[in-house]
Amino acid sequence: MSKGLLLMVSAPSAGGKGTILGELFRRDGNLRMSVSATTRSPREGEEHGKHYYFISREEFKNLIDSGSMLEYAEYVGNLYGTPRGPIEQWLSQGHDVVLEIEVQGGAQIKKLVPDCVSVFITPPSMEVLEKRLRGRGTENEETIQKRLDTARKELLQAEHYDYVVINDRLEDAVDDMQAILRSEKLRYEREPERINGLLAAPKA
Amino acid sequence: MSKGLLLMVSAPSAGGKGTILGELFRRDGNLRMSVSATTRSPREGEEHGKHYYFISREEFKNLIDSGSMLEYAEYVGNLYGTPRGPIEQWLSQGHDVVLEIEVQGGAQIKKLVPDCVSVFITPPSMEVLEKRLRGRGTENEETIQKRLDTARKELLQAEHYDYVVINDRLEDAVDDMQAILRSEKLRYEREPERINGLLAAPKA
Repeated sequence: MSKGLLLMVSAPSAGGKGTILGELFRRDGNLRMSVSATTRSPREGEEHGKHYYFISREEFKNLIDSGSMLEYAEYVGNLYGTPRGPIEQWLSQGHDVVLEIEVQGGAQIKKLVPDCVSVFITPPSMEVLEKRLRGRGTENEETIQKRLDTARKELLQAEHYDYVVINDRLEDAVDDMQAILRSEKLRYEREPERINGLLAAPKA
Repeated sequence: MSKGLLLMVSAPSAGGKGTILGELFRRDGNLRMSVSATTRSPREGEEHGKHYYFISREEFKNLIDSGSMLEYAEYVGNLYGTPRGPIEQWLSQGHDVVLEIEVQGGAQIKKLVPDCVSVFITPPSMEVLEKRLRGRGTENEETIQKRLDTARKELLQAEHYDYVVINDRLEDAVDDMQAILRSEKLRYEREPERINGLLAAPKA
């Protein structure tokens, strides 16, 4: 069986990542979503193993020390990180795994896991992003301007990613994600033994 | 408008390239097939501009001298080559162009046109290839063994290609080709200005 792909996905603020991933998971039963670990306490409705792995600071530090955290960061006094274990298990079972990463963390993961595939999801234009932010009607002018500024800076990080998916029509964006998953598995360099095996061994 | 992709396709003997490309062209009206030039005379039923561009040796040499041949070779006293002109025109019009190349020529084109995408089509196993060759019932044992030997050598060239498509089920193989075309257009490095343009300009 072929090993799965690790798909690292980032998007600027209000880029539409959640909607696209929701539809992608609906279509593709072979996908798994990486779950972060944190030392903060669960909030109402949050489940261990679904929203986060809620672990103690001691357990978290042990995972760091044993090299079992792909990346981690401290934020407002709590540790957040990505445990390697579940990801590697899923990949070896042939599942593709999606890892949602803050735009700032993308370049780092790509260095740690060079054969991961990274996708940057972006709104079709700043105008559309602004419309989407205003359309929510929940944020004041200052917040909107701040989020636009952040998005503008985050868009500059796209160059660190393998692929850029423009979130204009949802169906198209999800088709794009599926094409990336499908074609990346066909890369010669990803699995040379797949091809070299054709030369001799009978097909399994 | 985005520039098209140049898709270089090779397959070992009896790899099933013709069938796959036929179905791909049926599905995708934006594709164009590169036509070779040759100095040999047309055979019965062959049309200029469809099967080959039939040109004189002098015209052919002029094209070489002006750098207008992507690659060329002499075979049994006739010149065969790939004229750049039609390919570049189609690409600039946004068409994707398929260039069929002998397995031996693949590595060369990839050097000449680094942003082309190369695909190696292969049968699922040597056993299947042998069955296909025998199934035709048109070749004697010596010819079959010779073709199998050639195929075995040609499969070793797969490493020079970006992608390897295994021709097991036709529909799957054509889906693979389409996924490659779709995802390659999403690569950041292919069109950085597509992304950087989002920052400022309103969407066209």
